[in-house]
Amino acid sequence: MVHSSLLKLSTGGDGEIVDLTHGVASIVSASGARQGIVTIAAVGSTVAVTTMEYEPGGVRDLAGLLERLIPCEGEYAHNALNHDTNAHAHLRAALIGPSETLPITGGRPALGTWQQVVLLDFDDRPRSRTVHVHVVA
Amino acid sequence: MVHSSLLKLSTGGDGEIVDLTHGVASIVSASGARQGIVTIAAVGSTVAVTTMEYEPGGVRDLAGLLERLIPCEGEYAHNALNHDTNAHAHLRAALIGPSETLPITGGRPALGTWQQVVLLDFDDRPRSRTVHVHVVA
Amino acid sequence: MVHSSLLKLSTGGDGEIVDLTHGVASIVSASGARQGIVTIAAVGSTVAVTTMEYEPGGVRDLAGLLERLIPCEGEYAHNALNHDTNAHAHLRAALIGPSETLPITGGRPALGTWQQVVLLDFDDRPRSRTVHVHVVA
Repeated sequence: MVHSSLLKLSTGGDGEIVDLTHGVASIVSASGARQGIVTIAAVGSTVAVTTMEYEPGGVRDLAGLLERLIPCEGEYAHNALNHDTNAHAHLRAALIGPSETLPITGGRPALGTWQQVVLLDFDDRPRSRTVHVHVVA
Repeated sequence: MVHSSLLKLSTGGDGEIVDLTHGVASIVSASGARQGIVTIAAVGSTVAVTTMEYEPGGVRDLAGLLERLIPCEGEYAHNALNHDTNAHAHLRAALIGPSETLPITGGRPALGTWQQVVLLDFDDRPRSRTVHVHVVA
Repeated sequence: MVHSSLLKLSTGGDGEIVDLTHGVASIVSASGARQGIVTIAAVGSTVAVTTMEYEPGGVRDLAGLLERLIPCEGEYAHNALNHDTNAHAHLRAALIGPSETLPITGGRPALGTWQQVVLLDFDDRPRSRTVHVHVVA
């Protein structure tokens, strides 16, 4: 059984982190699946999906870490060759990855109490984003 | 067909890396699946799953790399706001990600000879961990 | 329904990035699946799979970033203990991860216009690589 759905959202970009947990759990619930897996994938090359404890401190720390490791400003070939400004966004997205696949158990995504599914929009402008959520059971 | 199982383990935390390959292969074998996929996901926001050559040198190098990129000590908002000490663990786990999905071929996870599935427990204290292993075939 | 296939390729190693999108899309198309998921996994502990905009600037930036964060040259225990030279390749592969799972929608992998599935071969010599592509629908 495959149950395909999607989440649509608008972000401010610039590394905004959005909690997708409720949306994902609702789709899993609507699918009727009790055991299986769910793939959550953001469309685009400047956006990523992972899990984290979604609280203000961790959100600020992750932004700080990524700016330290992969700064917005830098000598990037992507920007030079394409007259663009978001090379850092591409690099951050490629490193973290566009998707996460989680087990479903008891009709819910198998997450810890302090663990949320998040989208990270690294682009340097507001974006409309599509997230595919596919349940296989 | 979905076959759901789990691994329970205790770790010392502090970046301990545990080889899950035998446990995952046993669950895949018990499922009877010859072709399919298997999702391996650790529960929690301070633990991650990936693959690596599980040998003492690589284990030491990975610990060293993560301490260099994301040190235990630092000015972390998570620690300041929550009176906590494991912000580095949250950041490392979010970067590497909580799960891995692997193909199953010939009744086994498709891994190289020198490639193991590992759990990395970044929390700064011993933990009991649950890893969900879901086979879809 | 599980449809299992694989891609075989030769790379020059040293961080070569190979666009797998066409090969993956062909396998998905041949499977006949309209909705589902596809797992793309490279075999080995010095190779990784992610998505990115596959253009010369971004390819160069990603190579530069990884050399800055995880240099080829360094005091690596893997190299010292195993008389080896590719510790950096192991670390880069473990960080990015060996696989990606993407939704299938309308008979195609759900990717953005500027988003490609890529293999990154970090080993320090030419390699023959196997990539398993498993469709579940």
